[in-house]
Amino acid sequence: MVKSNRRKFLASVAGIAAVSAANGTSLMAKEKKYIAHQVYFWLKNPGSSEDRAELINGIKTLRKIDSVKKITIGVVATTEKRSVIDDSWSVSELALFTDLAAQSAYQVHPIHLDFIKNYSHLWSKVVVYDSAEV
Amino acid sequence: MVKSNRRKFLASVAGIAAVSAANGTSLMAKEKKYIAHQVYFWLKNPGSSEDRAELINGIKTLRKIDSVKKITIGVVATTEKRSVIDDSWSVSELALFTDLAAQSAYQVHPIHLDFIKNYSHLWSKVVVYDSAEV
Repeated sequence: MVKSNRRKFLASVAGIAAVSAANGTSLMAKEKKYIAHQVYFWLKNPGSSEDRAELINGIKTLRKIDSVKKITIGVVATTEKRSVIDDSWSVSELALFTDLAAQSAYQVHPIHLDFIKNYSHLWSKVVVYDSAEV
Repeated sequence: MVKSNRRKFLASVAGIAAVSAANGTSLMAKEKKYIAHQVYFWLKNPGSSEDRAELINGIKTLRKIDSVKKITIGVVATTEKRSVIDDSWSVSELALFTDLAAQSAYQVHPIHLDFIKNYSHLWSKVVVYDSAEV
């Protein structure tokens, strides 16, 4: 019986893999379309690695907000300089939400309000781009 | 022998699931850190849904570039208007790369050069943010 259940479990997992393969996707792929909330922060002290690290730690606290699907944090990449590239910012936050309501809930969540209260002294400018995946 | 191989395959798939569960991640999660190439396009004719659709189709061709890990395409989301939000653009492209070399290869790839040649008449402005995930 135990062995039978184990086989059923294995067959079930293999089934997921087979369906994914049939769809031309891997197990790692996510097909859900998200609302992307992209934020760029300009530090008051852009040369301060301490301030940058502090802001990154602050953004990490936002991952605890239940309506957040995923947050990735970035710093300026050392790609080739081109006139169309804005590399004047210091830290980026990309937050993904399953829908607009989840993004609205994030805006007014106590953890987000605490983040603004505790970390906004670090930045001089913020620019936000909210996009809906097509 | 065939049955033995099948069992090995099933055990292997189940092993991936077990490791993922042990790491506190799901099979859907990706833990790799990417170079994110985020582009915002302003259309010459921002009111033209035809031009927007044409540009989106153009960006989709970039997915064929072998050094691209993933490209997601967005349009302005109908989130609440706030002073920090820039919603003056029309189409966004987020391209993920495994490293800086892959992003450089994308820039000079014939498919990318064709994209610029064939679709740049549609846009009046492009802003790029290249970030390295931390």
